[in-house]
Amino acid sequence: MSLVVQKFGGTSVADPERLRAVADHVARTRRRGDQVVVVVSAMGKETDELIHLAGQVSTTLPGREMDMLLSAGERKAMALLCMALHDLGIPADSFTGSQAGIITDTFHTRARILEVKGDRLRQCLAAGKVPVVAGFQGVSTDNDVTTLGRGGSDTTAVALAAALGADACEKYSDVPGVFTADPRVVPDARRLAQVSFEEMLEITATGSGVVAFRAVEFARNHGVPIHVRSSFSWEPGTWVREEDPAMEQPVISAVTHDTSEAKITVTRVPDKPGIAARLFRSLADENVNLDMIVQNVSQDGTTDISFTVPKTDLPAAVNVCQDHAGEISAAAVLTDDTIAKVSVVGAGMKTHPGVSATVFETLAEHGINIEMISTSPIRITCVVAAAQVEEAVLALHGAFELGD
Amino acid sequence: MSLVVQKFGGTSVADPERLRAVADHVARTRRRGDQVVVVVSAMGKETDELIHLAGQVSTTLPGREMDMLLSAGERKAMALLCMALHDLGIPADSFTGSQAGIITDTFHTRARILEVKGDRLRQCLAAGKVPVVAGFQGVSTDNDVTTLGRGGSDTTAVALAAALGADACEKYSDVPGVFTADPRVVPDARRLAQVSFEEMLEITATGSGVVAFRAVEFARNHGVPIHVRSSFSWEPGTWVREEDPAMEQPVISAVTHDTSEAKITVTRVPDKPGIAARLFRSLADENVNLDMIVQNVSQDGTTDISFTVPKTDLPAAVNVCQDHAGEISAAAVLTDDTIAKVSVVGAGMKTHPGVSATVFETLAEHGINIEMISTSPIRITCVVAAAQVEEAVLALHGAFELGD
Repeated sequence: MSLVVQKFGGTSVADPERLRAVADHVARTRRRGDQVVVVVSAMGKETDELIHLAGQVSTTLPGREMDMLLSAGERKAMALLCMALHDLGIPADSFTGSQAGIITDTFHTRARILEVKGDRLRQCLAAGKVPVVAGFQGVSTDNDVTTLGRGGSDTTAVALAAALGADACEKYSDVPGVFTADPRVVPDARRLAQVSFEEMLEITATGSGVVAFRAVEFARNHGVPIHVRSSFSWEPGTWVREEDPAMEQPVISAVTHDTSEAKITVTRVPDKPGIAARLFRSLADENVNLDMIVQNVSQDGTTDISFTVPKTDLPAAVNVCQDHAGEISAAAVLTDDTIAKVSVVGAGMKTHPGVSATVFETLAEHGINIEMISTSPIRITCVVAAAQVEEAVLALHGAFELGD
Repeated sequence: MSLVVQKFGGTSVADPERLRAVADHVARTRRRGDQVVVVVSAMGKETDELIHLAGQVSTTLPGREMDMLLSAGERKAMALLCMALHDLGIPADSFTGSQAGIITDTFHTRARILEVKGDRLRQCLAAGKVPVVAGFQGVSTDNDVTTLGRGGSDTTAVALAAALGADACEKYSDVPGVFTADPRVVPDARRLAQVSFEEMLEITATGSGVVAFRAVEFARNHGVPIHVRSSFSWEPGTWVREEDPAMEQPVISAVTHDTSEAKITVTRVPDKPGIAARLFRSLADENVNLDMIVQNVSQDGTTDISFTVPKTDLPAAVNVCQDHAGEISAAAVLTDDTIAKVSVVGAGMKTHPGVSATVFETLAEHGINIEMISTSPIRITCVVAAAQVEEAVLALHGAFELGD
């Protein structure tokens, strides 16, 4: 008998009919002889609706109260799912983050999990019942309700799987797995049977939102295999797990892309120690999320510093740069929000030289100019013009023969 | 400085605009120098909507999960109200039933309060903040979420007022007070400035739903004055408090009526000890709520037993009676769902003989037949034909000169 954590996202529990389908799937898992712990998100777009409601009564939006408000969404979904399970003869009890023993720090709306107690879940399993746990929420060390922020429900599921010693965490959503590229861009993109944690971190960081980055990180740190599956087809999806050292890794697993960022270039910055540090400290103080940073070699004692930021952070970032431009004797602050990132990710890259050459040649053949480059041991990312990014993805997907 | 518990019902917090109006009222109470604890119900019809949703996924409706589901409603209302208060510069923290320390028994969907701890509310007040508490909910001795059933939010407010030693509990709704009769029936009905706990219990039991019966009972037992007020006009309403022995009581305070019941008569029941007891035990076992019970004097060794039940309980009650009719040798089980109750309530009745004579004469003058009578020391209730009940209310209201 194995223990599995099944996590269902908002679209999977969006209405009574979908909830009953989920209950049926959980019941079938139980009949197979497995123990199940279920984690649910709020139904459909409910979290967005609650945020909208808050905006109608308040401009200050205090974090403690936002968390109390938002945590109502998962309560509804989990209680309804338990009712549907009861109707199928499966005993099930719902648990809030607090009841499940998900202890967090005190940072409202973006709390981090400190500890998962899970005593009541173990008792519930021992009693032959299915525990259904609210995703996205916990209780702080001050005994206040907290929410985990973006990707919170995925993180809840992985953290529970780790704490309960589950054999796997199954993540169900309307996305049936991890693909060699976005199927909307690349018609012959393939579903991957498995990817390693390292590859999945790079894939997630460079464009795919199928599993939240922090959940993948948590799963890697605790060795929890994740099975990414569709709750509409119930077909096997993609396993995210430890690299199997006995198997040869594909050179490239996936081509990802991301159009959510913009580029800033601060030109002719004096090439002296501490200048760039001062700028980036000020950006951090404004909570600007920096992604790629490139500094060219010095020419006549000055250099150009380029970096990318989420488009939503662009106005704040430009303000900081302009405030500092005089102080650091920069010539100008240039912005470009018509860029995109294209990345190739693959664990086999480590032992196969020549991948970057293939990337650059392929883009060159299609007349696609590379504006910035950054690499990790298993990833190469190029910034290109947004208008050319889909062509770039198609070309790279073909060059590495990732299609069917 | 006094401490007041302000309780706002669903219509008072039905939308963002109303929520902001409530926040403004709480802020004004604070500026007057008083400490405030707020209790809220779910917004508008949300509880009904959640029950409807449950019916779409389940026919079994397990109580533990219904309570988890329904308790989401107050969470939203209280979090939103706290946000609106923050925007007015009033620090406010929301508390679930569990956080407020409202400990109940384990009977889901109709739990009884065992104890109110209230430690966090006292800390919140001491810190100069406004605690906003979810009505209708608590936490059981098994650490599960419970709801208090019908009238639960009023009961929460009174129980908190008692536990915190509040000077008063203000109940705000769309009803501006307690009236000498239903103003929809009697155009010159007056708002009463005050009524005693005893009178209010009788008024509540015989037709007015302005404050839940169990909340009035709790208030009487703990000596908590209730101020029934409108959240639309914010005008002073009706005080419900201990009778003032120094003041002469009005003979009659109010005329109430109730059209929600039906009458059952079991005819020619043998007039022997234990026969009626057996029938009423069976009705109790089926959770049928009996109200008035009248047994006529015996004639030829048999008697007719009549009683009233809520119309919703009528089918179950008839089944029980028919099952027993043979066993107890009754002749027939007759039902009438076109009856209504009309009552006169007044603490002064105790020292004024002749009230019942006036009631019977008044009804007789209007050709209204009395089908059943029941009395308490401060109430007289008559069952009449439903078609004549409004005429009866108007006639009695006039006869006792209760109008403006």
